[in-house]
Amino acid sequence: MSGIITLTTDFGDTSGYAAALKGVILGIAPDVQIVDISHQIAPQNIFEAAFLLSTVYRCFPHYTVHLVVVDPGVGTDRKIIALKTSEGKFIGPDNGVLSYAVKNYVRDAAITSSSLLQGELSNGAKAVTVTNSPHFRHPVSDTFHGRDIMAPVAAMLSKGFELTAFGEPLERLTMLDLPQAVKEPGGTVIGHIILIDRFGNMITDVRESDLPQGGELRLELGKKVVSGLKKTYSEGIGLMALIGSSGYLEIAVNGGSAAAVTNLKVGDVVKVFSKQSSRISCL
Amino acid sequence: MSGIITLTTDFGDTSGYAAALKGVILGIAPDVQIVDISHQIAPQNIFEAAFLLSTVYRCFPHYTVHLVVVDPGVGTDRKIIALKTSEGKFIGPDNGVLSYAVKNYVRDAAITSSSLLQGELSNGAKAVTVTNSPHFRHPVSDTFHGRDIMAPVAAMLSKGFELTAFGEPLERLTMLDLPQAVKEPGGTVIGHIILIDRFGNMITDVRESDLPQGGELRLELGKKVVSGLKKTYSEGIGLMALIGSSGYLEIAVNGGSAAAVTNLKVGDVVKVFSKQSSRISCL
Amino acid sequence: MSGIITLTTDFGDTSGYAAALKGVILGIAPDVQIVDISHQIAPQNIFEAAFLLSTVYRCFPHYTVHLVVVDPGVGTDRKIIALKTSEGKFIGPDNGVLSYAVKNYVRDAAITSSSLLQGELSNGAKAVTVTNSPHFRHPVSDTFHGRDIMAPVAAMLSKGFELTAFGEPLERLTMLDLPQAVKEPGGTVIGHIILIDRFGNMITDVRESDLPQGGELRLELGKKVVSGLKKTYSEGIGLMALIGSSGYLEIAVNGGSAAAVTNLKVGDVVKVFSKQSSRISCL
Repeated sequence: MSGIITLTTDFGDTSGYAAALKGVILGIAPDVQIVDISHQIAPQNIFEAAFLLSTVYRCFPHYTVHLVVVDPGVGTDRKIIALKTSEGKFIGPDNGVLSYAVKNYVRDAAITSSSLLQGELSNGAKAVTVTNSPHFRHPVSDTFHGRDIMAPVAAMLSKGFELTAFGEPLERLTMLDLPQAVKEPGGTVIGHIILIDRFGNMITDVRESDLPQGGELRLELGKKVVSGLKKTYSEGIGLMALIGSSGYLEIAVNGGSAAAVTNLKVGDVVKVFSKQSSRISCL
Repeated sequence: MSGIITLTTDFGDTSGYAAALKGVILGIAPDVQIVDISHQIAPQNIFEAAFLLSTVYRCFPHYTVHLVVVDPGVGTDRKIIALKTSEGKFIGPDNGVLSYAVKNYVRDAAITSSSLLQGELSNGAKAVTVTNSPHFRHPVSDTFHGRDIMAPVAAMLSKGFELTAFGEPLERLTMLDLPQAVKEPGGTVIGHIILIDRFGNMITDVRESDLPQGGELRLELGKKVVSGLKKTYSEGIGLMALIGSSGYLEIAVNGGSAAAVTNLKVGDVVKVFSKQSSRISCL
Repeated sequence: MSGIITLTTDFGDTSGYAAALKGVILGIAPDVQIVDISHQIAPQNIFEAAFLLSTVYRCFPHYTVHLVVVDPGVGTDRKIIALKTSEGKFIGPDNGVLSYAVKNYVRDAAITSSSLLQGELSNGAKAVTVTNSPHFRHPVSDTFHGRDIMAPVAAMLSKGFELTAFGEPLERLTMLDLPQAVKEPGGTVIGHIILIDRFGNMITDVRESDLPQGGELRLELGKKVVSGLKKTYSEGIGLMALIGSSGYLEIAVNGGSAAAVTNLKVGDVVKVFSKQSSRISCL
């Protein structure tokens, strides 16, 4: 078993930063499999990294180490954390970038002074603050902890080292206040567009289990309306809705761009109601 | 021998879809070498994927598995096929995306109702319809058969499983009607631009063996004319023609973009004649 | 030990050229780790490739083979070289693309007729001209020596073959005339912007050790002025200067683009002086 490390960063593909991580990793774990999830996260967009990771990490074996370097606070006193859940190992800055990965393993998340949440670990998840410097690459630069701290620790985690080799246990992690579709009394669901992919497909925060039950679905997307749910892209003509491969409601146009057709953007509201519930809530 | 799997998709580099394939593959075949051919195929462009694969697959050992996920028909009744020729193993939807790979292994290709060709396998090539679900990732989503069906099968093929482990033999594959340069009676060759690369080099469907023999070559590119064939990019000034690294006639500008200079696009005609044959055909 | 090969090219991500290199390499060295440094070097930009490699190669173990294919002279009589220093092995065209890698291993570099430098190897570095064709991929194309010559040699170097297996020793390598910050008598340092990354951060040729000592630093960037050096991006507001992760002075804007704010471009001058030295030099 050679181990797997995934990388999710905002480095882009024109710098050598991702390769620097890989060089450091391979120097420590020569046989590890390194997989790029993406280096195209918008610069410093913590939410995008957290969400993208969440759509993928369950495809990997549970012994995989997921390294996320979207780190606007590099060089400040923000912590670096290593986390282990029943689904994988994770390492990144404690800025919310692991929010989705840890979502089912925290309780009592509450807003702190910084308007971020702090959640208490539960369900068997463990975390440490990464502080144990003998394992780092020296000298540690002030601007690139991904290369000098996180990559070496990821490499050692992939070789089976325990979390506690790298620092003291941590009880509470920083969490983003994740967007979440809201069910209104009449059964209508208020969701949001949280990501637009390169095909112009718009992914929402509405999970399959959030959808109103009974009666055909009806979506309001700004001034556009979509009726019913397709099973596949090829089944529909024009604007359509379906449950995408990551389990969220998506708006798509077969062979076209839903983002262009609707003129909507990330953050905009998507209302979902069943024709049945609609009738109820309008009376 | 650890096995090799190549990936050719239209996923782009901002989604996690390619990483999802890799996670599934590595869960089954932890030591396989995964190579990205490209994830930048234009969305749903079956021809581009088929052609790009054809320029590369012969560089890989014959035991390599080439996985192609350009799949506009996902979730419909289009088949998924696994194919083995003397040059490699291939897996993808049965929509023509393997047309170039299988080109020398089919006979009697004829147009079907859907205006695609159906070709009968020959020359020792074997194919199956992939239907054997115990090997799939469950639940199989309706929108991402690349991850749930093709990736697991590719992983198992790389480990040496036989095609017949995955489904029933298939005699006829779907083929695109591939562009092909035409030799006219006077010796003139009518070719087409089939791909433009990021340097603005224009790749045609004219193979070296298609070129008129005897006399210096002359090319007509819209309103531009090019004389003679260079051996290398650096040999020429301005617009030039040469046989590119994939064995096809290319139009290039040393240090510039042939596409910009000629204002031509994919599908446009390139006429090639020898000055000799030209003289004959014009009399 | 499975070996590592890095790739730095101007192939882009829409061609199959990088995959072609990998297929050839894996056919010879099936267990090697292949790492993409970048395939996004601007077409034929030798300096950019040389610099990018220099920011990364020291992150890799010394047994790594660094393959650089930015080769506008392909098919001419330019040499292909394989080089070994105490820091790594390198292979590429002899066009200056290894200038930074070999910088500390040459003496007496002098300008030749072609306005490039020729430097004599020293400090234990060894090089050969790669000419030994039995190791090449045949037939060798005129336009893609990366695939047909350099990739097979890189694969064999990664397996431990000696340089001398591939050709005759070479004493002098071609070097670019690398930009270098100049210290003026009053202590002022005249540097240049040599690279702009995707965040708009501007990297200069001023190394930390070049900086004026004593007194707070002051930078002139066209019409803009920056005072002092930050330790991290997050520490500053607006335009700021810091020592980046590759050890060079960088100009940045926290959460913005320094290139956009200053309107400067690659090659433009950055003046650095200490307030102290400034006062002295102005009297």
